[in-house]
Amino acid sequence: MEPEITDMVLLFQTVIQWIAIILSASTGVYDARKNGMDYFGALVIAVIVAVGGGTIRDLLLDRYPLFWLADPIYLISIFIVGIIGIILIPISRTDLPGDQKHSSGFLQSIVRLIFGTSGTFAFIDSFALGMWAYLGTMYALTSGIPPIIAPIMGVITASFGGVLRDILFAKIPELFKPSQFYAIASFAGATAYVLMSMEGFSSTDGFIVCMIVTVFVRMTSIRYNITSF
Amino acid sequence: MEPEITDMVLLFQTVIQWIAIILSASTGVYDARKNGMDYFGALVIAVIVAVGGGTIRDLLLDRYPLFWLADPIYLISIFIVGIIGIILIPISRTDLPGDQKHSSGFLQSIVRLIFGTSGTFAFIDSFALGMWAYLGTMYALTSGIPPIIAPIMGVITASFGGVLRDILFAKIPELFKPSQFYAIASFAGATAYVLMSMEGFSSTDGFIVCMIVTVFVRMTSIRYNITSF
Amino acid sequence: MEPEITDMVLLFQTVIQWIAIILSASTGVYDARKNGMDYFGALVIAVIVAVGGGTIRDLLLDRYPLFWLADPIYLISIFIVGIIGIILIPISRTDLPGDQKHSSGFLQSIVRLIFGTSGTFAFIDSFALGMWAYLGTMYALTSGIPPIIAPIMGVITASFGGVLRDILFAKIPELFKPSQFYAIASFAGATAYVLMSMEGFSSTDGFIVCMIVTVFVRMTSIRYNITSF
Repeated sequence: MEPEITDMVLLFQTVIQWIAIILSASTGVYDARKNGMDYFGALVIAVIVAVGGGTIRDLLLDRYPLFWLADPIYLISIFIVGIIGIILIPISRTDLPGDQKHSSGFLQSIVRLIFGTSGTFAFIDSFALGMWAYLGTMYALTSGIPPIIAPIMGVITASFGGVLRDILFAKIPELFKPSQFYAIASFAGATAYVLMSMEGFSSTDGFIVCMIVTVFVRMTSIRYNITSF
Repeated sequence: MEPEITDMVLLFQTVIQWIAIILSASTGVYDARKNGMDYFGALVIAVIVAVGGGTIRDLLLDRYPLFWLADPIYLISIFIVGIIGIILIPISRTDLPGDQKHSSGFLQSIVRLIFGTSGTFAFIDSFALGMWAYLGTMYALTSGIPPIIAPIMGVITASFGGVLRDILFAKIPELFKPSQFYAIASFAGATAYVLMSMEGFSSTDGFIVCMIVTVFVRMTSIRYNITSF
Repeated sequence: MEPEITDMVLLFQTVIQWIAIILSASTGVYDARKNGMDYFGALVIAVIVAVGGGTIRDLLLDRYPLFWLADPIYLISIFIVGIIGIILIPISRTDLPGDQKHSSGFLQSIVRLIFGTSGTFAFIDSFALGMWAYLGTMYALTSGIPPIIAPIMGVITASFGGVLRDILFAKIPELFKPSQFYAIASFAGATAYVLMSMEGFSSTDGFIVCMIVTVFVRMTSIRYNITSF
């Protein structure tokens, strides 16, 4: 059974990773347009939100070549999502600056799913959070980072793309303001992974626990409006 | 004839490169002073505008030692230009904050040439744009970056020094706002270079086409006020 | 006598380094809270102020693994100082946003020592400034950076943690504004070290002269209110 489970986990990881990249790219484009950027700026923000955290991690860990420079599939996907976002957003939102068009009901519902503050988005996004927390922490451990500080690489991977985005918006990063747990959730998941790993559990087991802990902390924080201070 | 042409191209590249560094450093100092920075801040901005894009490129590509740390000629030149700029600017501009002096007619005309919004500046600057687009893309290809995404390194080299500058000014980068084509021009030139390179043309031929495309796109965009949105 | 002196210098360096890290972390937390960040943001700022300059230096010089990822003692110490700061600051300051408590006289005097604008703080901080200027310049020289530009790595190590902090506060870095000499002081000390090193003096002698020059320039600038412009 073990190989079968591992295969399912790998498939699950791949699905989550791509959903995460698509979500990051599309919310990046949306935020960039809202901040008055042109399509070029929107594409840059899409890339930075999607791969920025992993890039900071790799620069700090000396992991080369960078994953998005070694394989063009990442940037190509982000560009496609970004261009679709650029085309869709102006006709679907009414709170954007500049010229606006009427939105169709169908597009609106898709866009609301992706960009809305609905629980669906937060739930899917929390899976991405756990996924990046796991990947960053695993890379840190395999790079020889002491386990006690390895979760930091998980947190950076999961959430520092948004920090780079906010720097380019010339704003204090949302991640550092009082709010429902985001970085904390990824830290909890990453720490769970390190503990599992030190206890000799497999990477697959560690991944599953990391996901459960991250999603649980994130969603509990949202559900009961528990905030940092 | 070929070696002779190559020699001329090399001389041309060297001339363009140094003009680009001097322009970047002097406009960097000017912008820094306008934003209320002291001479130290102005020199830092001069360095960042001049070598910041190439530094981001080299950090992403793992190209060490960084060109401006391997050979002191870059920083020394930027410092000399920066110090001249710091001395000249207060006596030549009247829109600066702080104490102002009267400007001489001669200095004013030099400064207007360098800092003015005249077509001359834009034309010279577009050569620098093409030059960095070429260099960044060439380094990306020789570093094994997939050709389809190599132009991104050209764009970063050509225009991300200004992004770092605007981050330090705590402003949304000009590069990401609707305006006449700048990053787009370098992207067009870089893409032309990649296509030439894939078709088996020499680096010299690719460089010439990259320059022509970049300068053409940039100047056409300015001439007919074609803007991104 | 020489080994004994060297031992004393090493002890002195270790003491200064730890005082510097503790000062950086605690002022980082204080500034972060004043800017409305939560405890997570405050800890990130504490880390960035304490190790940010050295990290930029190491990324530019390709020095891996990064010192704070190789040895967990740095981050653990910063976290401990940061958490103490987070606990102490709300009950000790009255100019913070959000809910405030009454401060005890004892805590107030400690906090005033650390966070006040007193000469004591500036004096201790200037030792840290000289220490980082020395370390950065020494690493630059041993990495083969040309001596004439090596002091730049000293300045970056000593003062660019604060630049990263101000970027995250979405403000123009204090370091680049007219003020009493800070970067200039570290530059003077770093240059003194390079000159000593080129004249064949030992690293210990160079360190001592770097400290004296940095502290002298910094404190003279404060005492007589000599400012950059």
